[in-house]
Amino acid sequence: ESANEFQTQKESLTQKLQETEERNQTLEAQLGELELRLEGSQLESEAFRKSLRSLLELLDGKIFELTELRDSLARLIEDSSS
Amino acid sequence: ESANEFQTQKESLTQKLQETEERNQTLEAQLGELELRLEGSQLESEAFRKSLRSLLELLDGKIFELTELRDSLARLIEDSSS
Amino acid sequence: ESANEFQTQKESLTQKLQETEERNQTLEAQLGELELRLEGSQLESEAFRKSLRSLLELLDGKIFELTELRDSLARLIEDSSS
Amino acid sequence: ESANEFQTQKESLTQKLQETEERNQTLEAQLGELELRLEGSQLESEAFRKSLRSLLELLDGKIFELTELRDSLARLIEDSSS
Repeated sequence: ESANEFQTQKESLTQKLQETEERNQTLEAQLGELELRLEGSQLESEAFRKSLRSLLELLDGKIFELTELRDSLARLIEDSSS
Repeated sequence: ESANEFQTQKESLTQKLQETEERNQTLEAQLGELELRLEGSQLESEAFRKSLRSLLELLDGKIFELTELRDSLARLIEDSSS
Repeated sequence: ESANEFQTQKESLTQKLQETEERNQTLEAQLGELELRLEGSQLESEAFRKSLRSLLELLDGKIFELTELRDSLARLIEDSSS
Repeated sequence: ESANEFQTQKESLTQKLQETEERNQTLEAQLGELELRLEGSQLESEAFRKSLRSLLELLDGKIFELTELRDSLARLIEDSSS
């Protein structure tokens, strides 16, 4: 091969390598961004579930209080019939 | 005693007896009326308690359904975190 | 009429009057007792209704708190989907 | 430059290009996987919110029924005092 051909091949390889490395950086940036979004989404989900668990505890409290009220009503009816 | 005196005493006694019997009838009428009112009041109280017992059963149903809903929410939160 | 007959009639009337007056006292006692029972029954009914009204207010409070809990859940779902 | 030097440079470039392309494929595979996970996570979140909305409607129903029960109790107390 002539020196010219070698030079052309070398330039072509160098350019292709550069393009591939740029594509690489783009992909790594996208990957990093997606990982952040997934992490953020998981943190949000966890915070959401934590809020729901608080609501569940409040609901437990309300059901307990309704049951106490129900027992008071039952006792009241019972006492009034004796 | 003279016949006149006897006659006067007899009339006085007869009149007093009549008044007492009338008072008696009035009292018996009042007593009958009061017994009816007391009986009516007791029937009303019993009907009232019966209605309250129906409400109590409805309340039991609602508390049961709220508890089922609470369990569904608990399962939903549990399943979403796995 | 003879004096004897008058005497017999007078005694008979006196005895009947006495019996009627006794019956009268019995009726008045029964009436008084019944009035007390009716009054007591009305006081009990009023106290019963007062207790029921307190329970009704408690129930209002529980329904209000369940509605607040429901609104919190609605907001939580809404916020999580944005 | 000599032909040997050129050959060495060419081989070095070719190898580096190959490594970069492999790294590229790995990144694209990771990106594809992450996109699938994010999509799956969003579908799950949407299904979760849909289930929560169904629960919210059930809760609305229960609150409505408790309010009807409350109104029945209020009417019952009112009617019993007249």
